[in-house]
Amino acid sequence: MQISELGEFGLIDHLTSTIKLENASSLVGIGDDCAVLDCSGQKRTVVTTDMLMEGIHFDLVYTPFKHLGYKSAMVNLSDIYAMGGTPRQLVVSVAMDRRITVKALEDFYDGLRLACERHHVDLVGGDTTSSITGLAISITAIGEVLPYDGETEVRPILRSGAKDTDLVCVSGNLGAAYLGLQLMEREKQIYLSQLREAEQKGKAESVVFEPDFAGKEYLLERFLKPEARRDIIEALRKTGVHPTSMMDISDGLSSELLHICKASNCGCRIFEERIPIDYQTAVTAEEFNLNVYTCALNGGEDYELLFTVPLTDHDRVAALDDVKIIGHITRPELGAQLVTRDGNEFALQAQGWNQGEQ
Amino acid sequence: MQISELGEFGLIDHLTSTIKLENASSLVGIGDDCAVLDCSGQKRTVVTTDMLMEGIHFDLVYTPFKHLGYKSAMVNLSDIYAMGGTPRQLVVSVAMDRRITVKALEDFYDGLRLACERHHVDLVGGDTTSSITGLAISITAIGEVLPYDGETEVRPILRSGAKDTDLVCVSGNLGAAYLGLQLMEREKQIYLSQLREAEQKGKAESVVFEPDFAGKEYLLERFLKPEARRDIIEALRKTGVHPTSMMDISDGLSSELLHICKASNCGCRIFEERIPIDYQTAVTAEEFNLNVYTCALNGGEDYELLFTVPLTDHDRVAALDDVKIIGHITRPELGAQLVTRDGNEFALQAQGWNQGEQ
Repeated sequence: MQISELGEFGLIDHLTSTIKLENASSLVGIGDDCAVLDCSGQKRTVVTTDMLMEGIHFDLVYTPFKHLGYKSAMVNLSDIYAMGGTPRQLVVSVAMDRRITVKALEDFYDGLRLACERHHVDLVGGDTTSSITGLAISITAIGEVLPYDGETEVRPILRSGAKDTDLVCVSGNLGAAYLGLQLMEREKQIYLSQLREAEQKGKAESVVFEPDFAGKEYLLERFLKPEARRDIIEALRKTGVHPTSMMDISDGLSSELLHICKASNCGCRIFEERIPIDYQTAVTAEEFNLNVYTCALNGGEDYELLFTVPLTDHDRVAALDDVKIIGHITRPELGAQLVTRDGNEFALQAQGWNQGEQ
Repeated sequence: MQISELGEFGLIDHLTSTIKLENASSLVGIGDDCAVLDCSGQKRTVVTTDMLMEGIHFDLVYTPFKHLGYKSAMVNLSDIYAMGGTPRQLVVSVAMDRRITVKALEDFYDGLRLACERHHVDLVGGDTTSSITGLAISITAIGEVLPYDGETEVRPILRSGAKDTDLVCVSGNLGAAYLGLQLMEREKQIYLSQLREAEQKGKAESVVFEPDFAGKEYLLERFLKPEARRDIIEALRKTGVHPTSMMDISDGLSSELLHICKASNCGCRIFEERIPIDYQTAVTAEEFNLNVYTCALNGGEDYELLFTVPLTDHDRVAALDDVKIIGHITRPELGAQLVTRDGNEFALQAQGWNQGEQ
């Protein structure tokens, strides 16, 4: 079905008719000028927004619409968790050109909905509009930060609270999403060259391309379907550990460490050998002739959490599942340093996504 | 200066360094994963989002960047007022391609800032990214609805509260923005044809085009620099009039009336002769051979308020400046009807912006 058959309002009705509100704070959802929220009580509201542009943040050649919806939601939820918050509501805007079918948008909304369900988030509003040049997605997420059990003060976790001697921790493992992207780019190039060859022979329609991703599913999933780390925030609350600073890793570990050092006016020492790397990531980096630590430091899109905790919390953090201590915070004049496996030290440099250029 | 010289984070710092927070509820602004808001107290939070795409919602040939920033903010603030709310915070995402200079973005932010200052709104976050295909802007605005003086219940004004016999009111006048757009489109075509002619003679650079807008400044301003009607919301509060339903007029009066009728399960009777039209709008419609009431009903982008009030509030509403009663709400089976000047009746039809096609 073409979108023009439904019209803008028909389309919105069609895509949003099954959306149910789950949170007590979501009073009015889609369908009015604004959503209405009840944010009263002992808490803080947190708000984040992210824009995803076709050709910069995603490539429709290898990104299924359902994954795109899921990931678009997830990158925003990840920012809410990175404040120590719980996401509650989401508004989504989509601008699309004539290639986008109703089925594609349904898949996109299915992905959005799945992400929302898993994280108990309500989709409360949005905007659906045309584009003359490709797909653009903009999502704003709203969450709340509650006091820890038994406390009265609400403390959102900012980037600016890291202190000298704090431990630097990351969740999960790094570099996997970047290698997932490399895999898909490689297969895309193979596909395009087969297509060109077949076109020259006038047989373009004969190309049946089977990408070769055997054994690499984990890396693809890390790139296409990242999972925001709600579990880590819950585990930290459960153990009563208050991180002094936190960010999610979207641009790359190096870039995020530099953000924390700048915002907190501190330095850091990170040990290369402690950076968590999945086995598949290491194997695939070697296949691509890439240094796996460079992938982990600069690859980005892992959506893991980077945070600092007081040294006195060492044992409680060390006991957490899927969290690794990779270094410590230092005085600002020492800079942000990486200690390599062979004992050399280098200043960390941000080489993450910058203006969409990796 | 080119954006690539500053880099993403340098650019964000550059654009946002002078932003100050004005509202007590804005605890943390730009620079972290999320903005942090204090939304506690006896009120409701309202959230709206709008996306503006180059080639669909604006044309950079005749839209100065400062106006674009101002208008992008204003269309969102207008949605907050349309709930009976007061805007407090705004997050803005901009995706831009290589044509966009730092100066252009500065102008855009100047416009945003001016809109925010006039409406006492804090810019608390956003996303700046690349686009391969034109400029995309997405803004989310957050506001609060407070109880009326002397009341304890908070009542956001939805679309769904209109009742049989309610009066239908609009603020300001309609159709002006649409004619402003027609004027600019006309001058653009003249410019492009002069350019083509000069190009054929190899003298493209000799074209010095002076658009002819004499006496039409009001119409241009209505299109390029609309003003959200904070004053109307304040006046209604002052007189103690609670509208039963409200919307802002972005797609056109017909379209918005149909939304209210659908959401409230009612009909309406609107009198053509009561629709407020500015003198300049009438004169210019005639120049373009357009029916001025068609412009007012279907033109859109006026960002005036459309609302309904109980019949018992007639005298209080009639006494308000810049508000006009244009008809009344009826039972649903009577439909949404327009009574023309010559006494004929027609069913209202939505012919506003639909998927960017007017």
